[in-house]
Amino acid sequence: MATQVIVLNGGSSSGKSGISRCLQAILPDPWLALSVDTLVEAMPASLRASDAGIEFAPDGQVIVGPEFRTLDAAWTEGIAAMARAGARVIVDDVFLGGAVSQQRWQKALAGLDVLWVGVMCDSAVATGREIARGDRVRGMAAWQAEVVHEGVAYDLVVDSTHTESLVCAQTIATRVGG
Amino acid sequence: MATQVIVLNGGSSSGKSGISRCLQAILPDPWLALSVDTLVEAMPASLRASDAGIEFAPDGQVIVGPEFRTLDAAWTEGIAAMARAGARVIVDDVFLGGAVSQQRWQKALAGLDVLWVGVMCDSAVATGREIARGDRVRGMAAWQAEVVHEGVAYDLVVDSTHTESLVCAQTIATRVGG
Amino acid sequence: MATQVIVLNGGSSSGKSGISRCLQAILPDPWLALSVDTLVEAMPASLRASDAGIEFAPDGQVIVGPEFRTLDAAWTEGIAAMARAGARVIVDDVFLGGAVSQQRWQKALAGLDVLWVGVMCDSAVATGREIARGDRVRGMAAWQAEVVHEGVAYDLVVDSTHTESLVCAQTIATRVGG
Amino acid sequence: MATQVIVLNGGSSSGKSGISRCLQAILPDPWLALSVDTLVEAMPASLRASDAGIEFAPDGQVIVGPEFRTLDAAWTEGIAAMARAGARVIVDDVFLGGAVSQQRWQKALAGLDVLWVGVMCDSAVATGREIARGDRVRGMAAWQAEVVHEGVAYDLVVDSTHTESLVCAQTIATRVGG
Repeated sequence: MATQVIVLNGGSSSGKSGISRCLQAILPDPWLALSVDTLVEAMPASLRASDAGIEFAPDGQVIVGPEFRTLDAAWTEGIAAMARAGARVIVDDVFLGGAVSQQRWQKALAGLDVLWVGVMCDSAVATGREIARGDRVRGMAAWQAEVVHEGVAYDLVVDSTHTESLVCAQTIATRVGG
Repeated sequence: MATQVIVLNGGSSSGKSGISRCLQAILPDPWLALSVDTLVEAMPASLRASDAGIEFAPDGQVIVGPEFRTLDAAWTEGIAAMARAGARVIVDDVFLGGAVSQQRWQKALAGLDVLWVGVMCDSAVATGREIARGDRVRGMAAWQAEVVHEGVAYDLVVDSTHTESLVCAQTIATRVGG
Repeated sequence: MATQVIVLNGGSSSGKSGISRCLQAILPDPWLALSVDTLVEAMPASLRASDAGIEFAPDGQVIVGPEFRTLDAAWTEGIAAMARAGARVIVDDVFLGGAVSQQRWQKALAGLDVLWVGVMCDSAVATGREIARGDRVRGMAAWQAEVVHEGVAYDLVVDSTHTESLVCAQTIATRVGG
Repeated sequence: MATQVIVLNGGSSSGKSGISRCLQAILPDPWLALSVDTLVEAMPASLRASDAGIEFAPDGQVIVGPEFRTLDAAWTEGIAAMARAGARVIVDDVFLGGAVSQQRWQKALAGLDVLWVGVMCDSAVATGREIARGDRVRGMAAWQAEVVHEGVAYDLVVDSTHTESLVCAQTIATRVGG
């Protein structure tokens, strides 16, 4: 059966977006790549630093409020609709709520053929990459490295600690039904 | 009745994204802002310069191919689903096909309360802003300034030639049902 | 005599960088465009939000500390050296200290042929453009609109309130010695 | 003796800018990070795709013309002047001309205490990272991986093939005189 959605879940700076772009490059069909960053950028500036929206605390914690949750739920439904309308979609997300976050996606994606991929990365290595990127609040990588995987069920897990994005993508690609 | 979707249509460098951000800032509820640029960035790099995808010719013409159209159609359905799921959405698009492009959106957004807004800008002024931005292919603004409005029906037209983005947004906001 | 350096001074969101890119497009020779934003991006991330470096307060005030000043002074000397080595340079700066900031540049640029340009913009209009840009701390435009011009001497003043960047650039270009 | 300039030379996607940001984060003093990308962005848009300026051929080759060379020479002098004026500077460059490119820097930096660092990366790995970045012309990494090191003399070589940016930076930091 043809895979319709690939969900990449992992902490900040674990390498999700690089893997996503590599998947786009090596998979034979065209795939859309949509990230939680795309959603955050689509929100009003005022929600990007507020209790009601999403807050990036100086210690790296990310707190989401009620208005963020509402828009996020609609965003999830919209991505499911894109897949039902025939687009192949790679979703790159951070399951801040672990298993609960996955359930939200499972509900929205019901009936679609989904490949669930965990993107692991050692916390210290992800923290180093966070510093190398230079555009992220310090501490997010460490906060999220493990908590985002709690209770989440995967078809496949890749670990970017010692494996390049392209190689992770090649592993995932072997599991994508065409 | 409460407006669920605001569609801003206008040529490149006509000021759509600035107006969109101002609308997000002044409207009392949170609105998602999604642009055709968001879609283009979500596509595989290979589609961004190919016959099958979208091509930005050196003279400023934009040519879209079959694979772009397929993903674009699914994207449109997805945005409609976001609105049906409760997100207020500002769509910022370039109707390269004029009335035909609008019909595609009308079909997808059926049953939703939509405010159709034309964003006009004098071709010479848009060309000057294209130069000032510095990140666009020269000539797009001129190519698109008029053709994107051909046969399109609007609830409201704003003209950014001599009017600031914020003022255009204020005009639009008075027509948004809450 | 051939102009070697064009200094554009104006508040945040007054249109300096757009004017700078238009100047690059219309002047017959190649000009480098260097902005205070370039300097800020070249600084360590830790200085970008600290007492010792540069701080963007939530109310739009910009406070610069001793380490910022040291690097800024060296940056200024470096740009002067680029011009002495034969590069034509457009500098886009915000004279937070008004006349004192200008003296710093005058000292560094001694012996070079400099065109001093003030970029004015009505505070309310600049504030609107700040909202339309969406990537600046709200309030900077209003804080800076007038204070950056206090006691500063210009060869030429342009006002972007009702005049497009390209037209401002054309006015400046007529005063650039070739 | 106190190091005044750190020159990082390596091919595209070899990890220079990540190492540069990590150095800024771990070195006790503030360092400016300036890259050849900064220079390219400062050039007129017209030079960024022309015979006289810099051209990124579809096969990944980079060709620089006479006007690029002139501005590049002045840029180099300017960075040397910044260091002489007291700024610590990390330069991140691509020695397209190998030893000849180094001589140009050696001449400009005469009298300064410079740490010359080669940033190596296996061509296949750099090519994978180029795909993961998604914003570079494909093929640059492979073209540049070896040629930029030909005949260049280093104080220190790091290899990012199997070593994280932060660890490379830590190795370099031990050699920086304070």
